[in-house]
Amino acid sequence: MTSPVSSQAQENAPAPWRSSAVAHTATTFQDGFWGPRLQAMREGALPAIYEQMRADGHFDNFHKQWDGGVQRTPYVFWESDISKWIEAASYSLATHPDAALASLVDEVIAFLVAQQQPDGYLNLWYTRAEPEMRWSNLRDNHELYCAGHLIEAAVAHFQATGKRELLDAACRYADYIATVFGVEEGQRRGYPGHEEIELALVKLYHATGQARYLRLCQYFIEERGRRPHYFDSEAVARGEAPADFWATTYEYNQSHLPVREQQEVVGHAVRAMYLLSAVADLARELDDPSLQQTCERLWLHLTSKRLYITGALGSSADNEGFTNDYELPNLAAYAETCAAIGLVMWSYRMLLLDTQSRYADVLEQALYNGVLSGVASDGTSYFYVNPLESQGAYHRQPWYKCACCPPNLARLFLSLGQYLYTVNEREIMVHLYAQSTSTIELGTHKVTLHQHTNYPWDGTVEIEIEVTEPVEFGLNTRIPGWCKEAQMSIAGEEIPLKLRNGYACVRRVWNSGDRLVVYLAMPVERVYAHPAVRATTGSVALRRGPLVYCLEATDHTTPLHQLRLPRQAPLEEHFAEETLGGVTLIKGLASALESGDWSNTLYRTTPPIASEQVLTAIPYYAWGQRAAGEMRVWINEEL
Amino acid sequence: MTSPVSSQAQENAPAPWRSSAVAHTATTFQDGFWGPRLQAMREGALPAIYEQMRADGHFDNFHKQWDGGVQRTPYVFWESDISKWIEAASYSLATHPDAALASLVDEVIAFLVAQQQPDGYLNLWYTRAEPEMRWSNLRDNHELYCAGHLIEAAVAHFQATGKRELLDAACRYADYIATVFGVEEGQRRGYPGHEEIELALVKLYHATGQARYLRLCQYFIEERGRRPHYFDSEAVARGEAPADFWATTYEYNQSHLPVREQQEVVGHAVRAMYLLSAVADLARELDDPSLQQTCERLWLHLTSKRLYITGALGSSADNEGFTNDYELPNLAAYAETCAAIGLVMWSYRMLLLDTQSRYADVLEQALYNGVLSGVASDGTSYFYVNPLESQGAYHRQPWYKCACCPPNLARLFLSLGQYLYTVNEREIMVHLYAQSTSTIELGTHKVTLHQHTNYPWDGTVEIEIEVTEPVEFGLNTRIPGWCKEAQMSIAGEEIPLKLRNGYACVRRVWNSGDRLVVYLAMPVERVYAHPAVRATTGSVALRRGPLVYCLEATDHTTPLHQLRLPRQAPLEEHFAEETLGGVTLIKGLASALESGDWSNTLYRTTPPIASEQVLTAIPYYAWGQRAAGEMRVWINEEL
Repeated sequence: MTSPVSSQAQENAPAPWRSSAVAHTATTFQDGFWGPRLQAMREGALPAIYEQMRADGHFDNFHKQWDGGVQRTPYVFWESDISKWIEAASYSLATHPDAALASLVDEVIAFLVAQQQPDGYLNLWYTRAEPEMRWSNLRDNHELYCAGHLIEAAVAHFQATGKRELLDAACRYADYIATVFGVEEGQRRGYPGHEEIELALVKLYHATGQARYLRLCQYFIEERGRRPHYFDSEAVARGEAPADFWATTYEYNQSHLPVREQQEVVGHAVRAMYLLSAVADLARELDDPSLQQTCERLWLHLTSKRLYITGALGSSADNEGFTNDYELPNLAAYAETCAAIGLVMWSYRMLLLDTQSRYADVLEQALYNGVLSGVASDGTSYFYVNPLESQGAYHRQPWYKCACCPPNLARLFLSLGQYLYTVNEREIMVHLYAQSTSTIELGTHKVTLHQHTNYPWDGTVEIEIEVTEPVEFGLNTRIPGWCKEAQMSIAGEEIPLKLRNGYACVRRVWNSGDRLVVYLAMPVERVYAHPAVRATTGSVALRRGPLVYCLEATDHTTPLHQLRLPRQAPLEEHFAEETLGGVTLIKGLASALESGDWSNTLYRTTPPIASEQVLTAIPYYAWGQRAAGEMRVWINEEL
Repeated sequence: MTSPVSSQAQENAPAPWRSSAVAHTATTFQDGFWGPRLQAMREGALPAIYEQMRADGHFDNFHKQWDGGVQRTPYVFWESDISKWIEAASYSLATHPDAALASLVDEVIAFLVAQQQPDGYLNLWYTRAEPEMRWSNLRDNHELYCAGHLIEAAVAHFQATGKRELLDAACRYADYIATVFGVEEGQRRGYPGHEEIELALVKLYHATGQARYLRLCQYFIEERGRRPHYFDSEAVARGEAPADFWATTYEYNQSHLPVREQQEVVGHAVRAMYLLSAVADLARELDDPSLQQTCERLWLHLTSKRLYITGALGSSADNEGFTNDYELPNLAAYAETCAAIGLVMWSYRMLLLDTQSRYADVLEQALYNGVLSGVASDGTSYFYVNPLESQGAYHRQPWYKCACCPPNLARLFLSLGQYLYTVNEREIMVHLYAQSTSTIELGTHKVTLHQHTNYPWDGTVEIEIEVTEPVEFGLNTRIPGWCKEAQMSIAGEEIPLKLRNGYACVRRVWNSGDRLVVYLAMPVERVYAHPAVRATTGSVALRRGPLVYCLEATDHTTPLHQLRLPRQAPLEEHFAEETLGGVTLIKGLASALESGDWSNTLYRTTPPIASEQVLTAIPYYAWGQRAAGEMRVWINEEL
């Protein structure tokens, strides 16, 4: 017997319901949905990315060929690929020791650290190619962005290995940066054109305990968008007219207004997500309600007006970012993989600010759809952009010249364990469901949670508790927004759903071997978009649990736009072991418009006739891995 | 009592059913649909275009500022605007003498002729800016295209006024061109990158009776696309790699294959239409079945796979031309006004090759929709491109830097009289219906036809015959493809429809005062596109008679994509005297998707609710002349 979620008692916390992060190392995924995927990232992606960087000249060019020409080939931000790879490899080393990888990482770190200048400066491009141009173009040239990734890599490597070489270099660099930028006499009142260092500085603060790094983060966030505008004066100093900024507006890098005054998510989507991740961090660290409200306001704007159903974002290639409310084209969608990764990062930080299931819902939506679509199951071919429709000419690539997504995917997935739970003194929050084992420190206790589940193919999750002695704590499990019928039981005994902020709360003394079974009804659902979304008018999407579905040409005999799914047509699901590594397929009978009777007619007054055709939908994340052809998420609907 | 057209006896001619052109001067339009429009072209467009050219520097720059820089500002083809204006003005002078205009035209002609070089060469750009580069880049630089427009202007001016100054200059230039290009030793085997001179040479042949001009036309057409490719060798001579051609393919200018081998209409749409107009001319002049079949094949390809319902063509801005079969986007439609004009020109020549109503159907479709949309009712503001959907940001302009459409519209409309009829020794073909009076030479007789009609608002046309003595001839009136019920009567007596190639044939001795009444049922029709047309899936267009309709935002309270027209909803028509100069409106009850109940939800499992809203459609040609806003031709349909 299941219960409609909406009818359950629901207590919404008036004040933020805080919890803290759990390290990714707490969790292991041996099998289930994520186990093989993470293995592919370790064994496929990590070596492939390294080899691609080497083949591309990421390492060689720093020594030999960079010439500082305006073309900037290689990219000025190639260093960040290296840093992200170190970060991803460090996450892997932390859970899966590997001497050869450890040694390779040490070698790459030594290469980086060797570039550090006596004053602490550490940037490969500028040091090699344009040493005299240091800090001359924060707006465009990713200098502080690269510093941020260097810091993230340093923290990850230190935490994985205890080795301080890169961490010390990062601290020296951050300390030097703090002398250059700030509001004191003689300092530059600059901040990055591409945000990233802000959230990295929060990590550095946590890793070192040094509050000066948090203060530097705070400076960068508070200074952003103030008048006179730093990028104006910087452009003038370069002899350029500020109005000639190629992106035409400072919305592009979210410096059009001070952060607290921003009302809408705008501009380059990855930049926006990285900035807002740091703003959420800072709101939590400073317990600053104004920053928290800024985050909540912008998060609502994004999720209610500018987010694809796949959790992807940034609809335009022109600015790699946002355009107008409800402007969510399918074929032309930019929907960069890294932006969806950024949304996972931001949503997670919103969750740390306040335990609200909507944040975890969006985290899960992005993770299983717009992020996971970015990498094939073997971990070695990628989508940089993730359209919701393809006419057959768009394919996965093993590498990109601007290769931000491969190492970003690797570092996200290889630290995936952090996203399952958060914790406070007396409660464990369960945000994501996945076959896994996690050991969590709850005050002085160690609590091990074994999730036994076939999620996302099945909505039943058994959470087995393992403790060395009975412990009283609240176990608060998320009832996803997509779930309309949920049920919980302990030892076969159904227990009432006591909901708070979308989490079902069970507080009791837990004994080893206790099993909390959560059942989340996961029927196939038809989903409709707000009528203002032009691109989806008259269309329906299919969703089951957290997974958005799509159609691929290979399963159909007519072009996909000629299929119409009747609103009342029954939809069936079945797990196909042999398809795409095992996925639940959705099937139904659709009307297929026929062209056989049209001869040489292009327009006529008789409507097209239709025949029945089985429509087969696969999870969106898996598309582009079989015979090349059309794909579409939004299916024409027949009323 | 009307008769279904399809049930009538229909005799299709096995051999081409030939007829000849009737000069535009045969026809006058005092009132009705076209009278005021042609007046606007005479009184609005002709002076406005002249003033815009003068303001732009079309005349001044030839003297002072052209510098031959690579930017080619002004355009290398600005001369053609002047020539087209002379041509249009000449058509006006032929029917509406105007001493001031005549004198202005003489002045402009004197300006042009003064540029003629001793060898006969006459091109403003090259003479002024790059004299040493003559004939160096036929592929890109419109040199022979300008020559073609000069010739057309010369013929029109000579025919209007009898003055030979420009005609003689054009003949000298054409004679010089014939020495430069050809297959003889020492000649260049070139041909134009932008076709135009070919059809102009046929006109020059008709005007002068000199067969050498037809032979030059034939050379240009036959040489086109042969191997070795002239544009390859020309590029090499300029020091360029042929593969670096910016348009990437010779399909762009239809030189990818010899014309007779071409299977599809490809490339730049205006170029294709001008070429094929000349090919049709040549097929007729030479009575060449292979050229005629080429035309028929390409005409079928265009009309069955690449033509907008508005008679517009060339869907992509990238090549100002064709892309793939059935690729007819609405919002992104390029659909250049000049391409639709070109289709009128080509369809007319197909009609001269063989009296088939389908050619006149397409001529009419383009004329009343994709061409007429190009100019506002006052004749002084234009659409260069004619999308079938606008989101509100696209507006008419008084001029364009590349201003091909304004004078092209002027010359088309000011010679519109030629398109109503064609004639052979014993028959008059009636292709278009319009309030008008035409005097036609039929053998040794003069036959005056008065069309009394409110067409296109009403499908009843009374053709009153005026002759000096009774004359026996066939009067063959087109039953349009859109018409499903037609009726004819003489003196109140219904006569059977005897159809041949889509024309109702009445052969008898006609007396002055005889009136043939043609009734063409003109109900509102729903039109559907071939299912392969992605952009129109699930949509319906409204058509009444020759007019395609559209929705404009100003008549509706929700965004147009939120309106759904039920397939069975009754549609009513009424003539609105006050709207857009008097148009028949189409109204019906549509479902309007509501967003009021969506709050901050972007996706949900409940479909949008809908309310009723009156849908109002106006003729497509008239859009963009009221409050700015959205427009769409293809309306979402509710089954």
